Amino acid sequence: MATVDLSSNGEIATLTLNNPGKLNAIDLAMWQQLADHFARLAVDPGVRCIVIRGAGHEAFAAGGDLEEFVTARATLEQALHYHGKVASALNAIADCPHPTVALIEGACIGGGLEIAGVCDLRICNESARFGAPINKLGFSMYPGEMEGLLKLAGAAVIKEILLEGRILSAREAYEKGLVTRVVPDVQVEDEAYATARRICNGAPLVAGWHKQWIRRLLDGAPLSDAEKAASFAFLDTEDYCEGLAAFLEKRKPVFKAC
Amino acid sequence: MATVDLSSNGEIATLTLNNPGKLNAIDLAMWQQLADHFARLAVDPGVRCIVIRGAGHEAFAAGGDLEEFVTARATLEQALHYHGKVASALNAIADCPHPTVALIEGACIGGGLEIAGVCDLRICNESARFGAPINKLGFSMYPGEMEGLLKLAGAAVIKEILLEGRILSAREAYEKGLVTRVVPDVQVEDEAYATARRICNGAPLVAGWHKQWIRRLLDGAPLSDAEKAASFAFLDTEDYCEGLAAFLEKRKPVFKAC
Amino acid sequence: MATVDLSSNGEIATLTLNNPGKLNAIDLAMWQQLADHFARLAVDPGVRCIVIRGAGHEAFAAGGDLEEFVTARATLEQALHYHGKVASALNAIADCPHPTVALIEGACIGGGLEIAGVCDLRICNESARFGAPINKLGFSMYPGEMEGLLKLAGAAVIKEILLEGRILSAREAYEKGLVTRVVPDVQVEDEAYATARRICNGAPLVAGWHKQWIRRLLDGAPLSDAEKAASFAFLDTEDYCEGLAAFLEKRKPVFKAC
Repeated sequence: MATVDLSSNGEIATLTLNNPGKLNAIDLAMWQQLADHFARLAVDPGVRCIVIRGAGHEAFAAGGDLEEFVTARATLEQALHYHGKVASALNAIADCPHPTVALIEGACIGGGLEIAGVCDLRICNESARFGAPINKLGFSMYPGEMEGLLKLAGAAVIKEILLEGRILSAREAYEKGLVTRVVPDVQVEDEAYATARRICNGAPLVAGWHKQWIRRLLDGAPLSDAEKAASFAFLDTEDYCEGLAAFLEKRKPVFKAC
Repeated sequence: MATVDLSSNGEIATLTLNNPGKLNAIDLAMWQQLADHFARLAVDPGVRCIVIRGAGHEAFAAGGDLEEFVTARATLEQALHYHGKVASALNAIADCPHPTVALIEGACIGGGLEIAGVCDLRICNESARFGAPINKLGFSMYPGEMEGLLKLAGAAVIKEILLEGRILSAREAYEKGLVTRVVPDVQVEDEAYATARRICNGAPLVAGWHKQWIRRLLDGAPLSDAEKAASFAFLDTEDYCEGLAAFLEKRKPVFKAC
Repeated sequence: MATVDLSSNGEIATLTLNNPGKLNAIDLAMWQQLADHFARLAVDPGVRCIVIRGAGHEAFAAGGDLEEFVTARATLEQALHYHGKVASALNAIADCPHPTVALIEGACIGGGLEIAGVCDLRICNESARFGAPINKLGFSMYPGEMEGLLKLAGAAVIKEILLEGRILSAREAYEKGLVTRVVPDVQVEDEAYATARRICNGAPLVAGWHKQWIRRLLDGAPLSDAEKAASFAFLDTEDYCEGLAAFLEKRKPVFKAC
């Protein structure tokens, strides 16, 4: 059965896209589960980083579940419902206050690429490959789902992927800004979780603020005086005192998210 | 005589910038011909992809025709007329519903770079070089023509090109997002037309929709409900049925643009 | 004592960030001096290019002066004052009519990265490294200072730097669009000043116009008819006549900024 599985290791939560025999293709129930998991994780104070990965080592996710399209996305009403669920999941990932890391092995296609694209960091292995060759399937990407990819890699790269239907190697995906880092196949799990631990070693409130202000700046509107003042919220935290003190005393800081 | 020549091979139309002895420098008549060709090709249902290239193997286009500037771009009135024609040509390329591929060999400078920059994909050879060293000619790039390059490669790259007057190698141009792919000199023609064929193998309506929605998203305004519904136009096409059926039957789809 | 030192060589002015024993960490007085120097250089008609570098070869600048934070950035009022000064300096660099080149050796961290990020070009050595690991210090980057970095390298790169606290090598910084060029350690000074001379060899008014129109286009608003006409100001300059004449006579132009 197709599921999105949650596991935890200390402050790091892992969500695993799991659709056996289908390269973790994402069906409607999985989009719903993704959104539900993120709704819960977003308000869980014990979580400091979320890793998203595929089950097994062959695929992050090979796209949407195309067999389901025939029955569950055949009419305009169904399509609006279906892609509304996809949007809820992608927005929940993009807006999550906790940093997110996509651990990508093998096929990262279509909906899989959309999920990876809205994570904060993308660590992939050398066998990873990226694309959305839906021009051969006769349908266009939902514009709302294109948005995250356009922000990440720009129109020229997305046109290569969508017009040519090109599958990019890990190296090309890196060169074109689609991924943060490429590592040898046997190291990708280690590197992704090392990245998650480096995130956890920082002050958690600071991570949340950085995500918040980056999102805010992408709006384009100038910051108000109230927002400028709000950006110094760290001044009243114990973690700021701890961070400066640890630096000046040349020791490792211990942050408490307060 | 300087011309832009049209030839066709099945669904692929080729426009060749041709100014013998001048490295295909583009004069006013050629800008006009480019716009005229695109006006006709845009509404030609037999066309699925347009390749733009330079005549010979030494240059895509080495810039504007500077000798002509002395007489035909000497006054403000002339300059507004001249660059109005350039804008018409560049907009016609950028807005063309059919995908466009720039096949770039050798010099891709000034106006040549502007043309390549508004194509959807750019396939260049290792001998290609890119720039606009007009700081040494004493004039600035028309802002309307800068826009496409800024969207493609960002302000830092355009500043390097315009302030330093730097000529970038094919490799650098790739690393900086100016081109889609670099291939050995002897393969560039094959690769550009293979790319065009890959585009033609996709559903033509899907290509048009992908171009349309990418352009629309770059506007920045949120999508209306009517637009969201319109983005599912594929549901009513034969090509969508064919695409899904071919996938599930593991055969190649045959698209009919309807 | 911490200072920003000015020296000149013909048309090239050099500003040196100098904080001995602290890897040129930037304190409040230095931010003020940077702004003051730029206010004067901006209106100096003898200047055609400004190079910014760090004293010595170990660091461009290793960040803000953290010891000073304890006393000079402890309250909201102090923080608004402090980062108002930083903003004045960064805006003065970004808005300078003369082209700016960051010559980067070694550590380019925090405030150093912010300064480099608002220069027009960034030439670094292979030993350079880039980051802002302030997640371990318990404070967030001031959004106004994030803006220049977001424009330069995009949200994904800035998230890697701020959420993971990652220090990027020169190569990675180049691959991710943070720097213009990486050269071997022993060549970086030569290359940065050769770049400055290439800028000086172009028409100075053209450099100013290119900077002006790029900044204007990033606003996003369409150009007015008056702006379109203004973009042809070069037509009335001696330098445009000289540039075209020199090209047609195959000789080097001599520009006089008029």
